[in-house]
Amino acid sequence: MSILVVGSVALDTLETPFGRADDALGGSATFISAAASFFASDIRLVGVVGEDFPQDGIDFLRSRGVDLAGLEVVPGGKTFRWSGRYHDDMNGRDTLDTQLNVFADFNPQIPADWRSPDFLALGNIHPALQQQVLGQMAKRPKLVVLDTMNLWIDLTPDELKATMARVDVVIVNDTEARQLTGESNLIRAAKAIRALGPSIVIVKKGEHGALLFTPTAFFSAPAYPLEDLFDPTGAGDTFLGGFIGYLARTGDLSDDNLKRAVVHGSVLASFCVEAFSVERLKTLTEAQVSERVNAFRDLSAFALETLDQAADEA
Amino acid sequence: MSILVVGSVALDTLETPFGRADDALGGSATFISAAASFFASDIRLVGVVGEDFPQDGIDFLRSRGVDLAGLEVVPGGKTFRWSGRYHDDMNGRDTLDTQLNVFADFNPQIPADWRSPDFLALGNIHPALQQQVLGQMAKRPKLVVLDTMNLWIDLTPDELKATMARVDVVIVNDTEARQLTGESNLIRAAKAIRALGPSIVIVKKGEHGALLFTPTAFFSAPAYPLEDLFDPTGAGDTFLGGFIGYLARTGDLSDDNLKRAVVHGSVLASFCVEAFSVERLKTLTEAQVSERVNAFRDLSAFALETLDQAADEA
Repeated sequence: MSILVVGSVALDTLETPFGRADDALGGSATFISAAASFFASDIRLVGVVGEDFPQDGIDFLRSRGVDLAGLEVVPGGKTFRWSGRYHDDMNGRDTLDTQLNVFADFNPQIPADWRSPDFLALGNIHPALQQQVLGQMAKRPKLVVLDTMNLWIDLTPDELKATMARVDVVIVNDTEARQLTGESNLIRAAKAIRALGPSIVIVKKGEHGALLFTPTAFFSAPAYPLEDLFDPTGAGDTFLGGFIGYLARTGDLSDDNLKRAVVHGSVLASFCVEAFSVERLKTLTEAQVSERVNAFRDLSAFALETLDQAADEA
Repeated sequence: MSILVVGSVALDTLETPFGRADDALGGSATFISAAASFFASDIRLVGVVGEDFPQDGIDFLRSRGVDLAGLEVVPGGKTFRWSGRYHDDMNGRDTLDTQLNVFADFNPQIPADWRSPDFLALGNIHPALQQQVLGQMAKRPKLVVLDTMNLWIDLTPDELKATMARVDVVIVNDTEARQLTGESNLIRAAKAIRALGPSIVIVKKGEHGALLFTPTAFFSAPAYPLEDLFDPTGAGDTFLGGFIGYLARTGDLSDDNLKRAVVHGSVLASFCVEAFSVERLKTLTEAQVSERVNAFRDLSAFALETLDQAADEA
């Protein structure tokens, strides 16, 4: 099934305790598309870059089977650049520089033959632009998944909530969930977000895993136990890409399959953070994904026996 | 199998956003014993109280089958009192007052016929006292479980580490794990604690569940999704009590059973926080425990199907 991905395509300059990367491939649409491509084959990207966008970025996305007919290249323009430094404990980061460049005037135009996607991934962009994309759909996709960030919760909370009301799945991290709702308890916060309209809410908690809330299920996914986070950039987008990619591959929106999709998103994100930018996704194999999905199950699985059985054995 | 519990017996005065309790039954040995009693029957408590200790505290522990022959009552003495106020988000608390009273001179004397317990729970007391208890054992228990707190990590880190080296299981919360080891990554922190000597480490993460590290297994237990934490006091001790009680009932120290013990500890702790002090444990039934253990399994369980199966179905 087809996935339409709308978001940023960027060049990131990153400093982490492990080293530095200059003008590395980044942006929400990049990570979402690349991650989704591990499960789904019909992925269409809408974004904007400048003439300076490197050919190897194009080549990488094409190699993952991503259709770039919706990637606008602005003549003479410069690509969106973000520069940041992660703290020593990797639990926070400082933005050193943001150059919106061509992204400042991003006005997503969905190609005419892309307006009926099965799945729609609204990467983190201004909520007005996310609504504009929704307005261009010829028919309602099977599932619309929205990501956002603290910036829009601060600047345009009403517009963001109005946008959330029009989607099926909202993915936020724990800080954003609390900020958006004023609820410190994450169960209450997720409930409050669901009350805005989206039937499904996912709260990402980094090293503590992720929570899935549907109308009929609650699911707590563990985090893969990583001793080193090499570069957390794009982990959230990669989660979204793995999640929607798995759903598009399977075409099944049951609670059980949504849980599996959360696990597959978590698995891809756990690989993403093992290297700078999309580097780990470049070398990742299907066998490695399968192996880690199985490892995920073992992380939190436990067999119950009744106490009576146990006492009999003792 | 027998469990020896050594720790504090206290009267807590608590303020939470939900109300106030005065001189409510508290203390690590109280919560550990009461929780363990849901699974094990031979529980022996060593602690100290003053003459002012209320009869209903004694009655409650006796009603749970806890042997109080090791509870010293100091003539004319006053019981250890702690007073605290929880923050509105329940994620922090301020100590308003601490009166050690008879607990200041606590010098645990294990009755002669209690010196060969199968299981030993060292509740949070000065690490020198925990070592003193270990020194009184006539033979090595099957399993020694140690709890501690930030106070001892601050004041007596070397003594605490020396004590940890002599036990089998160390239970800490995430903040304590980081503080004790200087590692912000919890996987690394747990590894560093295991390097001190204990073969098993459990890191409690409150709303994010708990992590179990054994020589051969890693397990991530979810937290039960509670919208309201009425009173978190004693949740950690209750976890320990449920954990060691389940192990004593089953007599099985395999990885699989340690996982189940973590779940049973988590379940009891999730009940404990639903009311002040030990109130919820007073009304808790075996059926309610079983029901929530089953609910715990559903929180994090997911069925895998291979992608090929999924694609065939789609």
